[in-house]
Amino acid sequence: GQPLLLIAGPCVIETEELTLHIAQRLKEIVSSRPVNLVFKASFDKANRTSGGAFRGSGIERGLQILAKVKQTTGLPVTTDIHESTQAASAAEVCDVLQIPAFLARQTDLLVAAAQTGRTVNVKKGQFMAPWDMKHVVTKLNSAGCDNVLLCERGTFFGYGTLVSDMRSLPIMRKLGPPVIFDATHSVQEPGGLGSATGGNRAMVEPLARAAVAVGVDGLFFETHPNPDQSPSDGPNMIPLDDFAALLDRVLKVRAAVEDFT
Amino acid sequence: GQPLLLIAGPCVIETEELTLHIAQRLKEIVSSRPVNLVFKASFDKANRTSGGAFRGSGIERGLQILAKVKQTTGLPVTTDIHESTQAASAAEVCDVLQIPAFLARQTDLLVAAAQTGRTVNVKKGQFMAPWDMKHVVTKLNSAGCDNVLLCERGTFFGYGTLVSDMRSLPIMRKLGPPVIFDATHSVQEPGGLGSATGGNRAMVEPLARAAVAVGVDGLFFETHPNPDQSPSDGPNMIPLDDFAALLDRVLKVRAAVEDFT
Amino acid sequence: GQPLLLIAGPCVIETEELTLHIAQRLKEIVSSRPVNLVFKASFDKANRTSGGAFRGSGIERGLQILAKVKQTTGLPVTTDIHESTQAASAAEVCDVLQIPAFLARQTDLLVAAAQTGRTVNVKKGQFMAPWDMKHVVTKLNSAGCDNVLLCERGTFFGYGTLVSDMRSLPIMRKLGPPVIFDATHSVQEPGGLGSATGGNRAMVEPLARAAVAVGVDGLFFETHPNPDQSPSDGPNMIPLDDFAALLDRVLKVRAAVEDFT
Amino acid sequence: GQPLLLIAGPCVIETEELTLHIAQRLKEIVSSRPVNLVFKASFDKANRTSGGAFRGSGIERGLQILAKVKQTTGLPVTTDIHESTQAASAAEVCDVLQIPAFLARQTDLLVAAAQTGRTVNVKKGQFMAPWDMKHVVTKLNSAGCDNVLLCERGTFFGYGTLVSDMRSLPIMRKLGPPVIFDATHSVQEPGGLGSATGGNRAMVEPLARAAVAVGVDGLFFETHPNPDQSPSDGPNMIPLDDFAALLDRVLKVRAAVEDFT
Repeated sequence: GQPLLLIAGPCVIETEELTLHIAQRLKEIVSSRPVNLVFKASFDKANRTSGGAFRGSGIERGLQILAKVKQTTGLPVTTDIHESTQAASAAEVCDVLQIPAFLARQTDLLVAAAQTGRTVNVKKGQFMAPWDMKHVVTKLNSAGCDNVLLCERGTFFGYGTLVSDMRSLPIMRKLGPPVIFDATHSVQEPGGLGSATGGNRAMVEPLARAAVAVGVDGLFFETHPNPDQSPSDGPNMIPLDDFAALLDRVLKVRAAVEDFT
Repeated sequence: GQPLLLIAGPCVIETEELTLHIAQRLKEIVSSRPVNLVFKASFDKANRTSGGAFRGSGIERGLQILAKVKQTTGLPVTTDIHESTQAASAAEVCDVLQIPAFLARQTDLLVAAAQTGRTVNVKKGQFMAPWDMKHVVTKLNSAGCDNVLLCERGTFFGYGTLVSDMRSLPIMRKLGPPVIFDATHSVQEPGGLGSATGGNRAMVEPLARAAVAVGVDGLFFETHPNPDQSPSDGPNMIPLDDFAALLDRVLKVRAAVEDFT
Repeated sequence: GQPLLLIAGPCVIETEELTLHIAQRLKEIVSSRPVNLVFKASFDKANRTSGGAFRGSGIERGLQILAKVKQTTGLPVTTDIHESTQAASAAEVCDVLQIPAFLARQTDLLVAAAQTGRTVNVKKGQFMAPWDMKHVVTKLNSAGCDNVLLCERGTFFGYGTLVSDMRSLPIMRKLGPPVIFDATHSVQEPGGLGSATGGNRAMVEPLARAAVAVGVDGLFFETHPNPDQSPSDGPNMIPLDDFAALLDRVLKVRAAVEDFT
Repeated sequence: GQPLLLIAGPCVIETEELTLHIAQRLKEIVSSRPVNLVFKASFDKANRTSGGAFRGSGIERGLQILAKVKQTTGLPVTTDIHESTQAASAAEVCDVLQIPAFLARQTDLLVAAAQTGRTVNVKKGQFMAPWDMKHVVTKLNSAGCDNVLLCERGTFFGYGTLVSDMRSLPIMRKLGPPVIFDATHSVQEPGGLGSATGGNRAMVEPLARAAVAVGVDGLFFETHPNPDQSPSDGPNMIPLDDFAALLDRVLKVRAAVEDFT
């Protein structure tokens, strides 16, 4: 069958050393499994709940580190961009440009990403219906991007909670592009920690298994050697040491459904 | 592994002949599969959207027909009750009493069901959090019922729509009782047909597969030889001719996860 | 202009003395204001979150106390019923029968209430769209009840929270019957206290003023001399000593909009 | 009492002539009423549902037209910005910079707006709790902006629908800044017209009255001489000819509550 597309990495670039370490570990994990890995890390957390929170390395240093990951490991890399002026420089390094969920309807950002010629992975806004992603696909296609990925990362479900509507996966797949389930952001609890976003790591694997059983082309996970010390998204990231076993369980589900999804 | 608990049958008892036919077909389907079947049919649709809609056979005739199903097929049977006065007579025939979702917090109905000594299957209200089912379990236990089943059948998600929050399955399992996913009611669209409830049959199987991949003890399906001619719940029931193949796909997912759910 | 219909009283009948005291105080409050008061108290809290919670006086004693209120104060009275067998006896005393929100779609209960000849006040289910109350009205009309009241008491908005969609008021008014806004239940937080329902009393008045500004025929409040000692709904009831001033502020809004609502 | 802050104008700048016409009419309307008017029009609809939709005049021409409005009518003006690079030039003309709801958490955009020294009006994201706007206020304050406005424009309530949670108004007012209710965007139905956003103009006035009765510092309306011919937001804009009468009804509610909101 088709290998699973796996987009994984830490939430944010902390140091070059740590970023390379995680990339290396992930590469080893996927080497013996039917998985195509794209390494993901953010250079800037541009929409932190709180203004005083750690935002990351900045674009210049961040792209240097991602280039180093690519060169050292041979892995394709991706990062998220937040304003249209960032598209071109990110595209010099990244194989896939990621559009954050809050920005999924910003036409200029989509067009700028499309014009780089890179694959564009758009996270469905927490405020959007899955069928409304059709217009996102059209905006990208019209701007010259034929390699679109659509990503489900949870939908608003009352203040401070997201729900994963599994119906969105087949609905978005019908739009054409491959569909990815973001298992770690889907368990976020926005504002759940007062001045930061909380989350429920225990639900990451059940939701990932559910998504695979429904049928997806890829999965997205954030992982870290020590999530509780990460400056961002700690409560929902998967400890790196647990990741291989989790992936095996998910792949077992995938093998069971590969004839009919 | 543990066989799957399957609660299945038509939405409503139309005629004895049709009810027996469906029960017989379901019995044949499960005979060669790792499934424990409980046959389900309602004698009364007590909360139809519209007052003029078909309500079913009535309790007396309905229980006669369920007794006939039990006698003819040897299958355990279940039906839903709506007022506490119905519990005792339903329990004379039924192995499992079902509490409808709208009534999940009616203490008298729960107590009356519990006092029959039968297993009680409570559907989580569309307006309830999964952790609030703890109090339902306590109410039943306190009234002498130790055989409780909890059933997820969708949660309110804006007018006319339900969402299946897959996190509710592990949350309810932690409460103790076996947990069942109702795959056909979860795709209902309340009021979606104007004076009747609509639904999206195409989503039944994806959600059933998701629930099994997350981990459930049982599944609930409504099925009919000709759903579009059924007087109730047609838009979300599974055609009986498609049921065996659907069940096989679901069981394949179950086999993949049986070591870790 | 038309006087405001006010349904008010304690959540639950505790003692005869307390019930009479509250009724007397409310009668004095409305005597000098453009308000038609119906005294409300429940004889049974039939769907408490937790089975061990106080449920009330029971139907027989409760109806005796309501009869005493009626006789002593001359006020019309109302209570809520939970099974169809309760309709006839409640109607012997009560001028208005109330159908709880969870039970708004139970056809037998609606029909039994309708057949008493009394006015029937139906609370919209937390899981229902306002336009779906059309079918409730039809069920009642078909069973001979022409005096229907529809009551908005909040809609599910994520686990443990309700939202008051003010659009539901004009939508339900278009269905024909007078529409009432239940200002104290609308601020409930189901399950918010663990094994009981919480609430936010501070939001009662803002929501009541909003509803009146939109346009309603009546308001529903629960009030108690000492809400925090009430066995039910304490967190959302209004202290009786604050009620007159609150009512005056609400009536001021009503006077401002009476020409155009 | 305090005059009402009114932010009003067409959704998008179509032509100079039409923009001036609307500003002139609005100025006449408020001249005899206790209202402080800020004229609003967008130079760019940067997040249209569909890529092919009309986006507006562009920033350069748009700001010229707003400068003309200001010069001709003497009204303060506002517009919305979408990327941080637009803040400085918009601030040369505009008295108030508006941050769109989807962008309410983009730190760079907030900081850029704050640094202009202008008042910044932030629409609460459809995916945000009202208490989470605290962090938005802090981000703006930290960047030197002390004149913040917070605006409620509806919250996600199932696919394609928003709900106006009136509790958000007092909750946001407690954060410090003046709070504005956006009555026309709150009735949007995202994606409701297939490739465009629908809306329900009939609900604009009821929600505006509700918000004023709860207590707000300002209102936001989009208005147009002929909404159904507008290239954007037609279904929810108020016809200019109806605006004065609507405003009078809203002001009547405001006068009734001014002592206690």
